[in-house]
Amino acid sequence: MMEVTKVTAYNELSKEELLELKEQLETQFTEIKGKNLSLDMSRGKPSAEQLNLSMGMMDVLKSDSNLACEEGVDCRNYGVLDGIREAKQLLADMMEIPKDNIVIFGNSSLNVMFDTISRCMTHGVLGSTPWCKLDKVKFLCPVPGYDRHFSITEYFGIEMINVPMTPTGPDMDIVERLVSSDPAIKGIWCVPKYSNPQGITYSDETVHRFATLKPAAEDFRIFWDNAYGIHHLYDDKQDYLIEIFMECKKEGNPNMVYKFSSTSKISFPGSGIAAIGASDENLKEIRRQMQIQTIGHDKVNQLRHARFFGDISGMVNHMKKHAAIMRPKFDTVLSTLEQELGGLGIGSWLAPRGGYFISFDSMEGCAKKIVAKAKEAGVVMTDAGATFPYGKDPMDSNIRIAPSYPTLEELKLAGQIFILCVKLVSIDKILESK
Amino acid sequence: MMEVTKVTAYNELSKEELLELKEQLETQFTEIKGKNLSLDMSRGKPSAEQLNLSMGMMDVLKSDSNLACEEGVDCRNYGVLDGIREAKQLLADMMEIPKDNIVIFGNSSLNVMFDTISRCMTHGVLGSTPWCKLDKVKFLCPVPGYDRHFSITEYFGIEMINVPMTPTGPDMDIVERLVSSDPAIKGIWCVPKYSNPQGITYSDETVHRFATLKPAAEDFRIFWDNAYGIHHLYDDKQDYLIEIFMECKKEGNPNMVYKFSSTSKISFPGSGIAAIGASDENLKEIRRQMQIQTIGHDKVNQLRHARFFGDISGMVNHMKKHAAIMRPKFDTVLSTLEQELGGLGIGSWLAPRGGYFISFDSMEGCAKKIVAKAKEAGVVMTDAGATFPYGKDPMDSNIRIAPSYPTLEELKLAGQIFILCVKLVSIDKILESK
Repeated sequence: MMEVTKVTAYNELSKEELLELKEQLETQFTEIKGKNLSLDMSRGKPSAEQLNLSMGMMDVLKSDSNLACEEGVDCRNYGVLDGIREAKQLLADMMEIPKDNIVIFGNSSLNVMFDTISRCMTHGVLGSTPWCKLDKVKFLCPVPGYDRHFSITEYFGIEMINVPMTPTGPDMDIVERLVSSDPAIKGIWCVPKYSNPQGITYSDETVHRFATLKPAAEDFRIFWDNAYGIHHLYDDKQDYLIEIFMECKKEGNPNMVYKFSSTSKISFPGSGIAAIGASDENLKEIRRQMQIQTIGHDKVNQLRHARFFGDISGMVNHMKKHAAIMRPKFDTVLSTLEQELGGLGIGSWLAPRGGYFISFDSMEGCAKKIVAKAKEAGVVMTDAGATFPYGKDPMDSNIRIAPSYPTLEELKLAGQIFILCVKLVSIDKILESK
Repeated sequence: MMEVTKVTAYNELSKEELLELKEQLETQFTEIKGKNLSLDMSRGKPSAEQLNLSMGMMDVLKSDSNLACEEGVDCRNYGVLDGIREAKQLLADMMEIPKDNIVIFGNSSLNVMFDTISRCMTHGVLGSTPWCKLDKVKFLCPVPGYDRHFSITEYFGIEMINVPMTPTGPDMDIVERLVSSDPAIKGIWCVPKYSNPQGITYSDETVHRFATLKPAAEDFRIFWDNAYGIHHLYDDKQDYLIEIFMECKKEGNPNMVYKFSSTSKISFPGSGIAAIGASDENLKEIRRQMQIQTIGHDKVNQLRHARFFGDISGMVNHMKKHAAIMRPKFDTVLSTLEQELGGLGIGSWLAPRGGYFISFDSMEGCAKKIVAKAKEAGVVMTDAGATFPYGKDPMDSNIRIAPSYPTLEELKLAGQIFILCVKLVSIDKILESK
């Protein structure tokens, strides 16, 4: 059991108490800085230990293997535009959609999303005016969110509108109001499960409200990036997400959603396989582009994945091994936050049940300073602001913590340094108003 | 030595002689049709025997291999946007450019070309107006050419202008005149070596004239798809191509060319690696797009290729094994054409020294009928017209023959059927005017 200690919130301390505390903390900070550490909590990438879990994949196909896929096609040669059958089945099960509603792509779902936006720009959506011909195109961006989503829409000159996240997903009152009233709003970025960076899973009601949206724009699409669909941390407690495509179909809006996913954080980042899930009509349009863009994606790698995982149950079992490595890392960061910052009133965070991140909210106006101070002591964090469109966090308070890559020992140390930075920057902030 | 037989050109035969000949040929045709054959000379894809040459690639990386690349990065994880060092070196040597002027992509150079055009559409070229904002964008298309090039420009609504091929490459008088006078002309598709479908290699003078073009459009680019750079058929006779990027640089036009290539017909089609070669300034723009579009391409596959081939000399040796398989196939088709059609005045062709195709020109207005007739007898050819923009061959005479995929036995048979169809259709054509 955790020891119960009496904690006083910082803003209840006197100026003198704060100054004394600051002095102590600065001594600690100077000491740590002197160690010339180099720690990285910035990147949502798997650790080497996690990558080792998939090394068996290297032995699945050998020089004497038969590389024909289920439909009899030689995977080494041209042919099969939208994915071999066994890869479709595997990823369709992973994405919880019928295998006729999936198209397999290359190694990156981000690339699929980019290409999707690019196609909308040059060719529109199911006959609509190409977005590049419009004066203004807007996207809704639940915040905090995934910086690389925002980079895509920014790259294409699409105006981004912040929508606050709530514990049940994006604020749907705002989403509904904007989507139904403004025909320039063409899409919304969503990471519906174990969201980046908060680890929030959209509630059943939220998903259902998405499916019943009445967009002013006929070419409005929900960009549903289910990047962490089976990336649980715990066996005994996990989040559940109802399936958006079927909800949309039931509500008569089958074309309204594009689902994206990949095996990047299941097998190897950069050497996995990605997919899009969508309605028949959407996929027809996607395939029309695809057959101009490529002769086909890497079928050998599709076959390697299908044979390595076998089926979705094999993949889910594989994810339990990832979880066993990730869980203590998340627990370490979370317990450090709890023990060191609990009750101090200078930061808040959520304890996610999956995904790759812990989202920390500092006092207003402190995030940039905390990240800069951590860097001073050799701890690299994701840039403050990165979780918002244009890199601008209006409150300057959100910081994304990525616990996956460092070792447990490194994390403990990095966590302590981070805490120290939060405390020091917060004290300065409170002192300003004393 | 070939037996010398006296041959009379078909148009010198009398009506009666032609009718008699036709009757004989039709008997043969009916007989062959009765065999219900299924042969395919349509696709420029390697045979299974060729694919077997690269099966050793499956054993290069094993579960106990170290997957770190030369710069020390773990290829299994995120990182390294534009290609690992050893893959860059290998493909730079293959493309005859400095390794600092290359970016490695995914599995398909066609995809790189598509993305390049797409980027020009949405973002322009080095600050020029995005092509999608212009009333008219035009491309020059040397004909006959590669159908998939033309499909890309057609997909983006770019107007295509035919430029006739000559034995030394595109007619440069026409290219120079058009490019220097019309600012709507933004590019030209080139397969400069062992061209698709004719197997023509651009002469030194042609390449040099390309490098000295004075385009009316500042954002004019040469799309230089050197798909068959090391795809020779013969050890003792091969074509040489001077290097365009250096020529352009010497002439003060370093930004004017994008070079494309891939290992699709070296290792595995669809599971190879592709690359773009260009100037520093062009690559800067390309990387700017790339870092929005993807976190990185498949580095494990890059590593697999680099370790399998070792270096360019290893790759060139590997291509000699491909040549040993391809050579008798080309020789079979060429000797069939020579023996059966030589001197008849009903068709012409070139004997390429490399690449994947033999281009056949029938009498005007006969290509569609020949292809249809061959299909009737169970031989699939590339659609007549496919080698021209919009699928429209103004003379209806060009037919692309792809000898790589069928076995030698199949090729002999398919060749005989093709000859028969050429003769029958040509006789009808000549009879019309008798």
